Amino acid sequence: MHRVKVRVVEDALDANNTIARANRDDFDRHDVTVVNLMSAPGAGKTTLLERVLHDLPLRAGVLEGDVQGSYDADRLASLHVPVTQLNTDPGFGGECHLDANMVRSALPALPLAEIDLLVIENVGNLVCPAEFRVGEDARVMVCAVTEGEDKPLKYPLMFRTCELVLINKIDLLPHLDFDLDRLLHNLDAVHPGVKRMLVSARTGEGVEAWREWLTQLREQVPV
Amino acid sequence: MHRVKVRVVEDALDANNTIARANRDDFDRHDVTVVNLMSAPGAGKTTLLERVLHDLPLRAGVLEGDVQGSYDADRLASLHVPVTQLNTDPGFGGECHLDANMVRSALPALPLAEIDLLVIENVGNLVCPAEFRVGEDARVMVCAVTEGEDKPLKYPLMFRTCELVLINKIDLLPHLDFDLDRLLHNLDAVHPGVKRMLVSARTGEGVEAWREWLTQLREQVPV
Repeated sequence: MHRVKVRVVEDALDANNTIARANRDDFDRHDVTVVNLMSAPGAGKTTLLERVLHDLPLRAGVLEGDVQGSYDADRLASLHVPVTQLNTDPGFGGECHLDANMVRSALPALPLAEIDLLVIENVGNLVCPAEFRVGEDARVMVCAVTEGEDKPLKYPLMFRTCELVLINKIDLLPHLDFDLDRLLHNLDAVHPGVKRMLVSARTGEGVEAWREWLTQLREQVPV
Repeated sequence: MHRVKVRVVEDALDANNTIARANRDDFDRHDVTVVNLMSAPGAGKTTLLERVLHDLPLRAGVLEGDVQGSYDADRLASLHVPVTQLNTDPGFGGECHLDANMVRSALPALPLAEIDLLVIENVGNLVCPAEFRVGEDARVMVCAVTEGEDKPLKYPLMFRTCELVLINKIDLLPHLDFDLDRLLHNLDAVHPGVKRMLVSARTGEGVEAWREWLTQLREQVPV
């Protein structure tokens, strides 16, 4: 039984990867750099996006993934960047993650000819989003210090498959029983040396470094 | 296409409910009250459990659900309550939730004859755990104030299907831009009047009220 189950999962991931490559071809053809932004619910993805998109020297667009509603998309609307809402609830069975096919269904609604960078804000979840490539150039995950030091050990695939970890809510460190060294130790245990940045979406601390990272990513990705 | 997808999901949930009822029959036969404890990653389920199990006037056991590892089970071991680890990674494809079949597979390892209360700590996730009954008498969810006020609106099924919402980390309220009234308003929008308690796993504030709730749940559930 278990072997069959794993085989089915592998087949589904193979099918997903095929569609992810098609997405990637479309993004490349339009010369758009794509970031898949992931985290647990409430880690601060949207607030960090609000911060980083302000003054970003790139033409950016956002694809907002949510089970339902458009609360985050509405928040980002004031930034005057093109925001497209993608809900997993109607039509996709209320999935807890974005997959390549869902992103593909949103492509016609994305202004690919008018942007340099597309940030795909995934559904808040540390498990399944990590299993599904959507055609991105890089994965960025947000880990809030309020979530505790053990998250890399409990959700290793997420931490292992990202190119950058944003350690958010550092403004709260003085008020927490939180051991930053232990988090970094756990992070290196599952993804040795992965690029990490200490940030605060609330105060803006560290956001400029992320802005520079995005700008450099855009320059490095082969056209 | 979408209609077929939804049908497949419904069939899977029907199959799950059948197994959940079998679990419930087994729990009833052993006179065990079962709580399904859910939250986002890092909301404080395990720390709250540590607090509430201490001095609980019931014989309790814990079934720890995680994608992999036994970090939370190890933490609870010092309480001298029976803890059984259930990982979704080997054999279950790394699922982001517990389902009735996974819990059923763990039944032989649970000391049902020796406990009054079983707490099933689900995988940290606000989406899929809400879709799968596992045979529980009640659902308790933990929502940390550090996650923001919008979570009920973004993950309504989770908030709608629980009997009790523990609003955790209230010791941090003085340090957050958090509007408690707005959270409660959003909570009532998706689950009007649902029982809620303000707690702090860190300081222990409010935990006695949860302890009393669990004790009353045990008394109310028909044997």
